[in-house]
Formats: sequence, structure tokens, C-alpha cells
Amino acid sequence: MPSAIASRKTQEKPREIMDAAEDYAKERYGVSSMIQSQEKPDRVLVRVSDLTVQKADEVVWVRARVHTSRAKGKQCFLVLRQQQFNVQALVAVGDHASKQMVKFAANINKESIIDVEGVVRKVNQKIGSCTQQDVELHVQKIYVISLAEPRLPLQLDDAVRPEMEGEEEGRATVNQDTRLDNRVIDLRTSTSQAVFRLQSGICHLFRETLINKGFVEIQTPKIISAASEGGANVFTVSYFKNNAYLAQSPQLYKQMCICADFEKVFCIGPVFRAEDSNTHRHLTEFVGLDIEMAFNYHYHEVVEEIADTLVQIFKGLQERFQTEIQTVNKQFPCEPFKFLEPTLRLEYCEALAMLREAGIEMGDEEDLSTPNEKLLGRLVKEKYDTDFYILDKYPLAVRPFYTMPDPRNPKQSNSYDMFMRGEEILSGAQRVHDPQLLTERALHHGIDLEKIKAYIDSFRFGAPPHAGGGIGLERVTMLFLGLHNIRQTSMFPRDPKRLTP
Amino acid sequence: MPSAIASRKTQEKPREIMDAAEDYAKERYGVSSMIQSQEKPDRVLVRVSDLTVQKADEVVWVRARVHTSRAKGKQCFLVLRQQQFNVQALVAVGDHASKQMVKFAANINKESIIDVEGVVRKVNQKIGSCTQQDVELHVQKIYVISLAEPRLPLQLDDAVRPEMEGEEEGRATVNQDTRLDNRVIDLRTSTSQAVFRLQSGICHLFRETLINKGFVEIQTPKIISAASEGGANVFTVSYFKNNAYLAQSPQLYKQMCICADFEKVFCIGPVFRAEDSNTHRHLTEFVGLDIEMAFNYHYHEVVEEIADTLVQIFKGLQERFQTEIQTVNKQFPCEPFKFLEPTLRLEYCEALAMLREAGIEMGDEEDLSTPNEKLLGRLVKEKYDTDFYILDKYPLAVRPFYTMPDPRNPKQSNSYDMFMRGEEILSGAQRVHDPQLLTERALHHGIDLEKIKAYIDSFRFGAPPHAGGGIGLERVTMLFLGLHNIRQTSMFPRDPKRLTP
Repeated sequence: MPSAIASRKTQEKPREIMDAAEDYAKERYGVSSMIQSQEKPDRVLVRVSDLTVQKADEVVWVRARVHTSRAKGKQCFLVLRQQQFNVQALVAVGDHASKQMVKFAANINKESIIDVEGVVRKVNQKIGSCTQQDVELHVQKIYVISLAEPRLPLQLDDAVRPEMEGEEEGRATVNQDTRLDNRVIDLRTSTSQAVFRLQSGICHLFRETLINKGFVEIQTPKIISAASEGGANVFTVSYFKNNAYLAQSPQLYKQMCICADFEKVFCIGPVFRAEDSNTHRHLTEFVGLDIEMAFNYHYHEVVEEIADTLVQIFKGLQERFQTEIQTVNKQFPCEPFKFLEPTLRLEYCEALAMLREAGIEMGDEEDLSTPNEKLLGRLVKEKYDTDFYILDKYPLAVRPFYTMPDPRNPKQSNSYDMFMRGEEILSGAQRVHDPQLLTERALHHGIDLEKIKAYIDSFRFGAPPHAGGGIGLERVTMLFLGLHNIRQTSMFPRDPKRLTP
Repeated sequence: MPSAIASRKTQEKPREIMDAAEDYAKERYGVSSMIQSQEKPDRVLVRVSDLTVQKADEVVWVRARVHTSRAKGKQCFLVLRQQQFNVQALVAVGDHASKQMVKFAANINKESIIDVEGVVRKVNQKIGSCTQQDVELHVQKIYVISLAEPRLPLQLDDAVRPEMEGEEEGRATVNQDTRLDNRVIDLRTSTSQAVFRLQSGICHLFRETLINKGFVEIQTPKIISAASEGGANVFTVSYFKNNAYLAQSPQLYKQMCICADFEKVFCIGPVFRAEDSNTHRHLTEFVGLDIEMAFNYHYHEVVEEIADTLVQIFKGLQERFQTEIQTVNKQFPCEPFKFLEPTLRLEYCEALAMLREAGIEMGDEEDLSTPNEKLLGRLVKEKYDTDFYILDKYPLAVRPFYTMPDPRNPKQSNSYDMFMRGEEILSGAQRVHDPQLLTERALHHGIDLEKIKAYIDSFRFGAPPHAGGGIGLERVTMLFLGLHNIRQTSMFPRDPKRLTP
């Protein structure tokens, strides 16, 4: 019963208040003892998002954080926050609240979690600063469930302020390291809540689409015995008395699953790159959304499946996560993400021609630099009005040894990248499924055959033609939302200089 | 066009056949050149599982593996396999096939992938050895797409033979190391196909259930800066010029997400344990299905959500994966998995009483040994007829420092394990969300506070009461199917002695 809980909640009430014998509300507020599952009360806690005029005049219990508080004579206004929703609450001296209770409420540290009993009241004037604009809560009881320390390392209001506004109006914003050092608080902002809910949605849409297409989810090992691609950029692990490595991609395992007749597989998991790159888009650990698929005659069968999967993700996000997109846009304004159906596919030589026409000098077998990648994105956007496209038929010379050469042009390969807002989010190819050609290609790349023996042997007992690709989850999130740093879309980012929290 | 492809398929035909000038079928068979996406023919490949009497007398193209072949006079019978399905095919000298063509078909190495054109014919007598029992394929064209080497390291028929049958009839079975060393082939068996399709289903059902319950999927880092629980059993990683560690669980990060107001989170990802345990149920890398959830008043709110999630998984598997379950049962016979709704919850002291009644001597604060765990499972099955139950209220002494003590009994804790067929698959607890109590508990456990400072600090700015748990995916798969070794349910298992493939 509610009263049973309430009655035990006075233990830590400040002395000055306890001394005031005339406090007629003393059972109605206080710091609750720690919840250790002592009881199972049948009290229902109403969600802040459900506080609407439909509930007008009802008495409800709410658990929420103190977002802000402001005392004003015999009243205290609180903004109570629950995830991305908030509501105004009023504690006013009267039948239910004493002077002492109002003072208590006004002194609760911001970010503390409280339980509040109150009456939902319709307001005459919309409360513009809250998500629940049509009602406020008239508080009758208030108990602190978990007290926050008085000094916060960052203010949530500062953390959601648009950069521009901060600069123009001289108001505080929060720099990235402060955010990341205090990630538990930074993740509470409406922007962060929206970013990571949308990211959860990307994973869900990715899997939903692929499972509907008949793919099987696989789990691939992250600790591997040999650094597959020559040993660069790989983290070493002490494995009992030996050394092992962290997988730079699940590719070899995906391919083994194809050779093992799973036909269409996907996986979502961490990918590790020991690259000392300190850029806006590199992490040492990121989440890979990986696809591998056997095809019948042409790797475009796979390219089409991957592109369609991404299109389904984009559509699903725009349908199901419009609120989240708008929330992020408030802080980081951005054009809506545009894409075509079917997806635009350009060949590398076409892209080269566009870049050359724009004054860029590039060799036929040269890879795209980051600035050229971005320029190309702008040129494609101008010409085709899409933020998403496929670049097909990369020069063989710039791709890994296991990439299938184009049989009609020895300088080209059956490989592709996909781009969002001018940045690469996926790299993929038809793989060489013939052990003899694979051996030749590895030798050509100067790779020690002994180290990739197990890999090559996987193809000796009948291997279907196949292709695939790997998508970076954080990049897709960043570029879909038009953010500018990958650390905004990784909950706990890892880079050469950051390994905490 | 089909004929365009067929006409280029003769290049590698054996000399003896090429010499036979009278071969009227020479364009109808051969070794195809490697598929490098030269063309996009509009040929439709029919699935083996779709070869039924509905297709009788149709001419179809099929791509499949040669499972077995048997020449018999002027005929050759092939069993063509595609994943878990197979069909009989007949190449017989006649209008479409020459003597040479039959010989060619008979000599194709097992496990090779072939394209076959044939007429679907209804058979009078069911073909008991194939999944497609009512039809066979009368082959008109046959091309090798990917040739397997002649000697297979293991035979698929041996690999699916039940142990008992092997022992009683003196027929070959395949030992575990041979299987794992040649995993690409071992995974092609109907048993492996079923096991890993069902495992994919577990992940899907887990997420489907939790997303419907309002959970958010999170991604937690695997490279961490400090070994959280004292440093035992943790793998060390070289991280640029420093050392880092591989996460033994996502728990700290899940909890940070709860402190960051995500309320209900889950993740699926690798978990690393540097334990030198060589048992049937330990791996050094496994897949954790992790849940963490804020609750209102009692951790049983969370226990019920987790138990219900597992029940939804069991139900979903029995509904959607009955074929897979039966396929595995053919090789590994096993009683159907039984569970109750709601899930049986026993307290630790009740379990102790049951064990003591069965003659086991155990102290009140002693943990369950593996044999006692299994015995308890049998006692529970006898008494309650369930293979799944919760054991609640473990002794505080046997749980980690962050476990919430039971306020009503200082020797007990608000913690629980869950069991399937008498083996632990989940360990969980209400966590201490109060930084002061957490500090006390850590000191009591002799943990260096400096090393867990960031963890404790996560709770300083308001933390809701919460609980959670971690499930081992491979264990759930193993125990649901009644298998006996966790290496059967990990595609590429890692243990102290195995790091390949």
C-alpha cells in the first residue's frame, strides 16, 4: 500500500525541518530509504508522456528526474523529466503542502529521481518549455528515490544547445570531451536519447529486412589465431601462453558460412581496427553490420539486396523515428536524407569523369581521397538529387586480394562501395571463390600463403559464387542524421586516445 | 539466355571424352568456367525444396551439391542436396544424355556444386532417402559450377549418424575435433544447418520479444581500460602503447545506460573469459544475450520480464522451428523441452532442503557445484515437471560485490540464476545503485576502489533501482536441444586449446 511506503520515508529529513513541530505535511515528503525490494506495493506509476488532458483531475504517482526547480514565494515549480518527456509540477503551500515541504522540494538537487503524487490539472496557457504542454501536476507528496550530487559536471540544457545559438548568444555549450567523460549524463539529453533510439532502430530494421529476405543470423568469433590481411592495424591479445588477434572484420567467417551452405547470412558485432587515425569518422572499435550472400550468376544480385536493405532502413527510420529525427535536428539542423528507388549505381570510371570535369586530376587506378569522396557526393547530389548511391567497379589495384577481378577488364574488379552524404558507409565485392585464383591473387599481393591456408582451404570442397559487404553502424547513424562526428553516434567511443568510460 | 552460358562450358572436359567424336550430347555437360559475373542470364533456378508433384513434367534448372552418386549400367543416380533438402536425379543414356555424359556425371566429386537442367517426374514409389520423396529429376544438362576436391576430410553421412547406431552397427561417426577442424563441411550437415538456424531464431525471438516490451538495443564496447572485477580471467590487449582488456560482460555499460535513462536495454554480443576451463560447457568467447532494466519497487518485476522473455523464446522455437528440432533429434534423441507459465521460482533455501533430502550435505552459504546443480534439476523435474526454473535469493557470500543484499536477511541477496535441463543459463541480480553502499560492498570484497571509480561515479547523479542478467546463447541452444557439448552450438568455438578455424 502506498501509505506503508510513505510512512518509512522520513529518516533523512533535515534537522531544521524536523524541529518545526507545526509541520502538518511532514509525512508527505522526505528522502526515501534505498529501494532494496523490501516490498511489492501495488502503486501504479504513470508515464510522463501519458500526462495529458485525458487524465485531468486524476491523482497519479509519477517517478521522474528533477530537471529544473524554481522557488517563488510559497510555490515551487519543478520540471520533471522522464527520458525525452517532461512536465511541469507545482508544489504550493496549502492543504497538502506545508512551507517546509515547499522548501524541501525546492532544495532537491537537479537530476535526482523522485516519486511524486499529484493531481493532473489542465492549464489555461500552454507550457511551451515542456513536452506535456496542456497539463501540470499539483504535487501532494514528494519523496526522493535517488539523490544526485549537488554539482553536475555538465548541464543538460547546455548539452542540447545548438552550436550556433551558443556562439551567437554567448551561451554555454558542452565540448565533446566533457560529454564523453560524463557520458552517463550526456546520454540523458533529448538529443542523445533520440540518436541511440534511432540507432537501435537501424539494427532492428537491418535484421527485420534480412530475415524477411531469408537470411540467417550468424555469430562469428572475435578472437582469431592469425591476422588475416598481412597483420597491419590489428590488435594483439594474450591468449593463455600464446598470442591471438582481434578480428578486423567477420568476413572470412561469413564466407565460410557461405561455403557451408547457409547461402545468405548476416551478423552484427564489434569490429576492431588498430589504426592510429584521429579523424571525425574513425573508431578503433565499431559495430559492423555484415552481409554475405551466394548468388546465381552476377554479383549485382547481391548489390541489389544490400542496397534494398539500406533503402528499407532509410524508409523505416523516416516512418518510425520521425520524432527522433526532429529532436536531433533541433540541435543539429540538417536536410532530410534523400534516396532513390532503385538506388543509383555509378561506375568508378563515370565518377572519375565527373571529378575530372570538376577539375580534379586523378589516375584511372587511383583510390578516392576523403576530400574527393565528399566532392563526388556533392556532384552526385546536384546531378541526381540523392544522398545515397553505389559506386561500382573499383580499380582492382586498390582492393584486397580476395576481390574478384572483372573478367572483361583486368584493371577493374567486381567491387563496390556505398555512400551516404558523400561518405563511405559500406565496402564490398564479389569474392574469389576459386582456391587456385585466390592463391594467385594472394601471391600477387605478397601475402604469406601459410597464414591464409585455412582461408583458402575453405573453398576446396565446392564453393558457390558469392559477394557481400560490411556497413559501419555508427557511420550510418551519423550520416543519416547529418551529424559531424562519429563519437556522437557511439555510446562509449574508442579511439587511439580514448578508452574510457 | 541459357544456351549462351551452356555453350561456353566445355573448356575443361576430360580428354578421353573430347576424343569421342560420336558424343551427340557434348554441349549438354562439362565443367563451367568460373562465375565471374560475366553475364546476367534470366535463367530461374528452382529450389530443391520446391521440387514436388506440383512441378511434375516441368523442365527446371537447379543448382545443388552432389551429395552422392551411383552409376549403374547406362544410368547414374545422383542425390542433389541444397541445405537440408535433397532430391534424386537420374542421368540415363537416351535422347538427352550420351554414354559419355553419364560417365561424366558419375565421376563428379561429391560436394561439388552443379547446375542441372531436368524434367521433374513423379515417382511411383516414395524415395525414402530424400526429403523430396515424390519426384525425381530426369537430367538433360549438367555442368559443374564449383568442383570439390576428390577426398573429403569427413563424410556427411557419417557426420549425422547417431552415436548409438554407430556403436551398435560398427559404422563410422565423426569425432569432434575432425568436425571442428573441417567446420565448413561439418556445418553442411542437416543437423548443423538445423542447430544454427534455430540459434538464429533464438536471437530473433529474444529481440522481437524485448522490442515489443519497449526495450532499446545498445552496443557496448568490448575493449575496456580496466579489468572490472579484480582482474582474474581477463584477456589483455595491446592497445597502442598501453594495455587494455576484453570485456568479461557488458554489465557496467548496461548499468550506465540505465543511469542514462534508457530504462530497459538489451544487447547481444561477444563475452570473453580467460578461464582455463576445459569442460563441456565453457568457452573462452561466447555470445551474451544481456538485459538490464530499471524497476519501480521490486526486482521481481525484472525477473518476471526475463523469465517471460525466455518463455517466449521457447514457445517461438517450438512453433517456428519444429522441423529443425526434429532434425536434430534424429541424430541426438531428446525429450521435448518443458516449461511452466508462469515460470517456477524457487528460493535457494528451498533448493537446499530438496538437495539435503536427497542426501547432499551443503552449508547454507555454499554455492551449487555442477553435480548438485544437475541433481537439483532432476529433482525439480520430478517434482514440478519443468525443464526451466528460477533459483532466487542466493547467499550474498557467493555473489559479486555489486549484488544488492536482501534487507530482511543479511546473508541473502536479491540475486537469481535461471536453469535449463539442470544447467545454469543466466545469472542476474538487483544491482546496488547507491554509491555509498556500493563502495562499502567493494571494500568488503577487497576490491581496489581506484579501479572501479568510474563505475561507482556512474551512480552519483541519480540512479534508479535496477536489475538484470546475462544469458549464454550457446548454452540456451545446447540445452533447449538437449545436446551435450557447447562446441556443437558455437559455429567456431574458442576454448583454451582451440583458436581455429
